[in-house]
Amino acid sequence: MNEVELIARLLPALPRNDSVVVAAGDDCAVLDLGAPDYVLFKTDAVVEGVHFTSETPPEKVGRKALARCLSDIAAMAGKPNSALVTLALPKDFSPEKVEAIYAGLNALASEHGVAIVGGETTTSPGAMLISIALLGTVAKERCVLRSGAQAGDAIFVTGTLGGSLRGRHLDFEPRLAEARWLRERFEIHAMIDLSDGLASDLRHILKASHVGAELLAKAIPISREAKLAAKEESSAKPPLLAALTDGEDFELLFTTASKDAVPLLDAWKQQFPNLPLTVIGKITSEPGLRLHDRNGVKTLTAHGYTHFAKS
Amino acid sequence: MNEVELIARLLPALPRNDSVVVAAGDDCAVLDLGAPDYVLFKTDAVVEGVHFTSETPPEKVGRKALARCLSDIAAMAGKPNSALVTLALPKDFSPEKVEAIYAGLNALASEHGVAIVGGETTTSPGAMLISIALLGTVAKERCVLRSGAQAGDAIFVTGTLGGSLRGRHLDFEPRLAEARWLRERFEIHAMIDLSDGLASDLRHILKASHVGAELLAKAIPISREAKLAAKEESSAKPPLLAALTDGEDFELLFTTASKDAVPLLDAWKQQFPNLPLTVIGKITSEPGLRLHDRNGVKTLTAHGYTHFAKS
Repeated sequence: MNEVELIARLLPALPRNDSVVVAAGDDCAVLDLGAPDYVLFKTDAVVEGVHFTSETPPEKVGRKALARCLSDIAAMAGKPNSALVTLALPKDFSPEKVEAIYAGLNALASEHGVAIVGGETTTSPGAMLISIALLGTVAKERCVLRSGAQAGDAIFVTGTLGGSLRGRHLDFEPRLAEARWLRERFEIHAMIDLSDGLASDLRHILKASHVGAELLAKAIPISREAKLAAKEESSAKPPLLAALTDGEDFELLFTTASKDAVPLLDAWKQQFPNLPLTVIGKITSEPGLRLHDRNGVKTLTAHGYTHFAKS
Repeated sequence: MNEVELIARLLPALPRNDSVVVAAGDDCAVLDLGAPDYVLFKTDAVVEGVHFTSETPPEKVGRKALARCLSDIAAMAGKPNSALVTLALPKDFSPEKVEAIYAGLNALASEHGVAIVGGETTTSPGAMLISIALLGTVAKERCVLRSGAQAGDAIFVTGTLGGSLRGRHLDFEPRLAEARWLRERFEIHAMIDLSDGLASDLRHILKASHVGAELLAKAIPISREAKLAAKEESSAKPPLLAALTDGEDFELLFTTASKDAVPLLDAWKQQFPNLPLTVIGKITSEPGLRLHDRNGVKTLTAHGYTHFAKS
């Protein structure tokens, strides 16, 4: 049994109640606790050796732990509110490092108006782990799920993709203001943040929305890092493959009706002149994920990794 | 720098915002998110080798992880609503064990109307860790903090104390219904759940309320397990010391005006005939924690461990 199969077995048995608007399976859980707004609820953990190394400055570890959760709130067009911090530390960990982790966390929290309302520090034999639990809010009519994409929709992505592990994964800006701005002005049908890689995360939207997609290879915005890596490292992925499959971009991927595409791009340029926004393809009623390049149409399969089928 | 000093250094720097009613330092954080009720927010982690062993049945590990958080919601007289589950597992962990952990978790969640709305499973070199993030609600006028104890208050404790590690720490019932019943009928001034041990947890109330307390040694309800341990294990604590300092009782410790003590005890016996409720002492304006026994008054010092001072 692999992880996907395990989750598929666990999900149906999870208890629910009347407060649950969206349970497991979107970027955040969505709850109706009787307030005018929905409550968004999310946890995310970073582990040494997986999401950072023993060499990563502790300020950046703390910042990244929170930033990942903030990115999930952004993906629902929400506003983050409060966080709890769980630190599991090896026994020989120094208090100064804990302070440095919190310094990184606190600085990012303050930037986004997030209160740190507690948590705990526990010792754990093994690697360091930081888990963040985050609450946010979103106006009921503004909450964006993964499940709303419609055939014909234009697919947008912010920023440039690939090569995040060269450093951006520690410094990325969660797209909170951008997501709220988008949702206030346009009918965003579906949205997700890119954590596992464009191909993999788009597939989550397709599955939740029961649709397919066609991407234009030429349109996909490839990061400078992914291009540099391809030049400098003999084992690096080709840049397009990196943009499609590298994780930890933490950009927004979303869809709107195609008629909104041009006005949205125009308004975006005015509002966020320094952050690229690109239409990379369209949603189709035909299921599956396909890539158009100069040689024709290829099918993208698998999770996070692409196997180019013969076209 | 020890952990207490570290926390003292971290707390003042934690960012806050207008939603925060109670930040770090009580059983749960309390937030005003615009609903009629406050939102309670809590995380708690259990770690293999600390809170359970590799021999503990995984169903009981899952149950305990959630039960500890539920006990914190009880301590605020709240109602639990939704939980997220973070599992950090060694690489060789079997899916069947994960299913068993969830089975224990789900069963307890269902009993208390708690939805499990997601979470994540990550691999971690080292010991298994389960962190639960829990949301609850409480009517604004019903929320009970640690800080409301007043000189003259009677101090109550539910159940019997000590020896929890002989098994009860895996099977305890979070006192959710009891706490809500208490708060609906009586002015509960301060409340906490017993996780670190009576002496240590009472000290949290005293510190938050700027008061002291006198306990009656004869009144403290000692568990059968603590008495058995003292008989059977040559290295066991004397039963009274176990009741004062053993952790993981997860009973409620609370105070009311002394005039409410008798009516409360009478009503409790009607409502919860199978769960003892005991008045164990009183709150004093003189600071410190003292124990009356047949030899006089002793001062209890330190956190969780008592050093009997000469009287």
